[in-house]
Amino acid sequence: VSRFARSLLAEWKRLGLPLEKERVVVAVSGGADSTALLLGLEELSRAGLLALTLTVAHLDHGLRGEEARADALWVTELCARLGLEVEAGRVSAAERAASSRDNLEQAARHARYDFLSGVLAGRGARLLLTAHTMDDQAETVLMRLMRGSGPAGLGGMEAVRLLDQKTETRLVRPLLGWARRAETVEYCAARGVEARIDPMNEDERFVRVRVRRQLLPLMLSFNGRLVEALSRTAELLRESDAALRVAAEALLVEASAAGTSEGEAAAESSGASDCAALRVDVLREAPGGLRRRALRLWIERGRGSTRRLELVHLRGVEALLEGTRGGRTALLPGGGKVHRKRGWLYLDAKKVEKGVGPV
Amino acid sequence: VSRFARSLLAEWKRLGLPLEKERVVVAVSGGADSTALLLGLEELSRAGLLALTLTVAHLDHGLRGEEARADALWVTELCARLGLEVEAGRVSAAERAASSRDNLEQAARHARYDFLSGVLAGRGARLLLTAHTMDDQAETVLMRLMRGSGPAGLGGMEAVRLLDQKTETRLVRPLLGWARRAETVEYCAARGVEARIDPMNEDERFVRVRVRRQLLPLMLSFNGRLVEALSRTAELLRESDAALRVAAEALLVEASAAGTSEGEAAAESSGASDCAALRVDVLREAPGGLRRRALRLWIERGRGSTRRLELVHLRGVEALLEGTRGGRTALLPGGGKVHRKRGWLYLDAKKVEKGVGPV
Repeated sequence: VSRFARSLLAEWKRLGLPLEKERVVVAVSGGADSTALLLGLEELSRAGLLALTLTVAHLDHGLRGEEARADALWVTELCARLGLEVEAGRVSAAERAASSRDNLEQAARHARYDFLSGVLAGRGARLLLTAHTMDDQAETVLMRLMRGSGPAGLGGMEAVRLLDQKTETRLVRPLLGWARRAETVEYCAARGVEARIDPMNEDERFVRVRVRRQLLPLMLSFNGRLVEALSRTAELLRESDAALRVAAEALLVEASAAGTSEGEAAAESSGASDCAALRVDVLREAPGGLRRRALRLWIERGRGSTRRLELVHLRGVEALLEGTRGGRTALLPGGGKVHRKRGWLYLDAKKVEKGVGPV
Repeated sequence: VSRFARSLLAEWKRLGLPLEKERVVVAVSGGADSTALLLGLEELSRAGLLALTLTVAHLDHGLRGEEARADALWVTELCARLGLEVEAGRVSAAERAASSRDNLEQAARHARYDFLSGVLAGRGARLLLTAHTMDDQAETVLMRLMRGSGPAGLGGMEAVRLLDQKTETRLVRPLLGWARRAETVEYCAARGVEARIDPMNEDERFVRVRVRRQLLPLMLSFNGRLVEALSRTAELLRESDAALRVAAEALLVEASAAGTSEGEAAAESSGASDCAALRVDVLREAPGGLRRRALRLWIERGRGSTRRLELVHLRGVEALLEGTRGGRTALLPGGGKVHRKRGWLYLDAKKVEKGVGPV
């Protein structure tokens, strides 16, 4: 078994993923990363180290005409040669953008999400695999850093993420934690497969391409192991964030009305059924970072989303905690509000449609 | 009052610092940043908005010969003109480096710390002011990011930091949260003062200079408000880290021997007086990020320092938590170790000399 396939298997085990009897959908564009992922899985299957049922999914976003059709054909032929099932789809991201409030990039992402969800559902698969590498992670971290993301965003992508609670489908990125882009190219070559090249990956109008071609090379001149360093930092940030989330949950329980008769009466009078009122005094004593994390969680539960919720809104809610006076209100984006009355905070939430996560 | 002085006063109040009757030492190199800080404080004093007793401290590190002597003279003359007390010192950082294990940069930093501590003590002052700007903060965050720092390091510099618990002296950076370097240059010019130029700030052999002159300009081409974004991200990271520290303290209390008779016996038999033994089962259930933060804190208390303590050592301690078998040991850098026995972790610590923090 090749070194690439062995690393893939080690990561698969580290992530606690099933080694057999699982239906898996692999998103393959035909580029080196996704082709290497597919070839690696195929090699592990042939060696009897994995026994999964693989379906390859390929989407033409309708943005690159003939070239994209050739990619689809190439992926289909590769799958035929490997004896794998393939589902190829085609949409028009441009039409989708025109008929929605999405820009082209968002429309393409939403179309991809819909297509892949459909393939997962159609096959009864619960794992969707994408081929994001450590290089993609480094680029994501840098892009978010430059946009001014907070601690959560700087954690970058997760190796495993729940896509849908109900269907228990998960998105898995088995290359994210260890594979450099050069390794996927090398492995494709070693397997005698010449992967497709996406000209969009060379187009410097895209921020990600400029990060890859200008920023990363300069940063690598400071630290030759920068990509690994960023990947590790992102992992530590995700861990800190997860720990903080647990602490924030505990704070919400402590501050919430549940369990106290006074609190239950307060929660009832607020008319909010799924998120209790919170005690001002408990919130006031908590450290700021934890308090804002808890308030964000509270609002997320009440509205079903944190879309458009910015630090400035959380600071507005925090301002309600100051002083002894009640009867004050902080506005939330999209029409909800938080109200302070007799030492309690009440959330008057408009439910927000849950947005689709990026794939 | 100038806009610069007003912003300085607003930050001074935001940080909750005393407006009067306080003895303050200002570290002034003669560069635009520290000169602007000094002139801003002087303007606020003249306007009756601050009533502090200012002492200027200037150190010649003995690295730049005649030029440095001219800087010292320039600072002394500026202070004379402003009617301010000045204490100018001179050391040889090179000699200090030769007679210690420090490199030149560390030796210079330690010499500066000793000098400034001496000035603080001599004047009975409890506040030391340095002129780090938002640009310095952005550079620090990027340098640490490229070195692969974890969440704590990425928080960059603090605006207020305790220097010494006993003497209650604090380091304050009143420009850090708001001032761009261009503003300090501009304010000096507006006050008719031509600040000194440190040729070391132009020497591209220093990482910080390359970050300033190569990396930041490229990143600014992605986001023109990058410096502000990095400063805000650093603040959020510091807040998260502070919140996580509070949660880690709570976990230590929960996991520690204190309060249970079994635990007290365990702590006694371990011979550790100032850090209790920890329960394996409690640690095992905590989220990883929080658990490692708590272990780091536990080790810091036991040894007096976290010097040379890396993630790999913490993972080694975590490995002790797996399974049911006791009698295992994880080694710490510098000779200490952690031992698992009958469901408890014991720290066998060698006290480490507390290192000097950077100024």
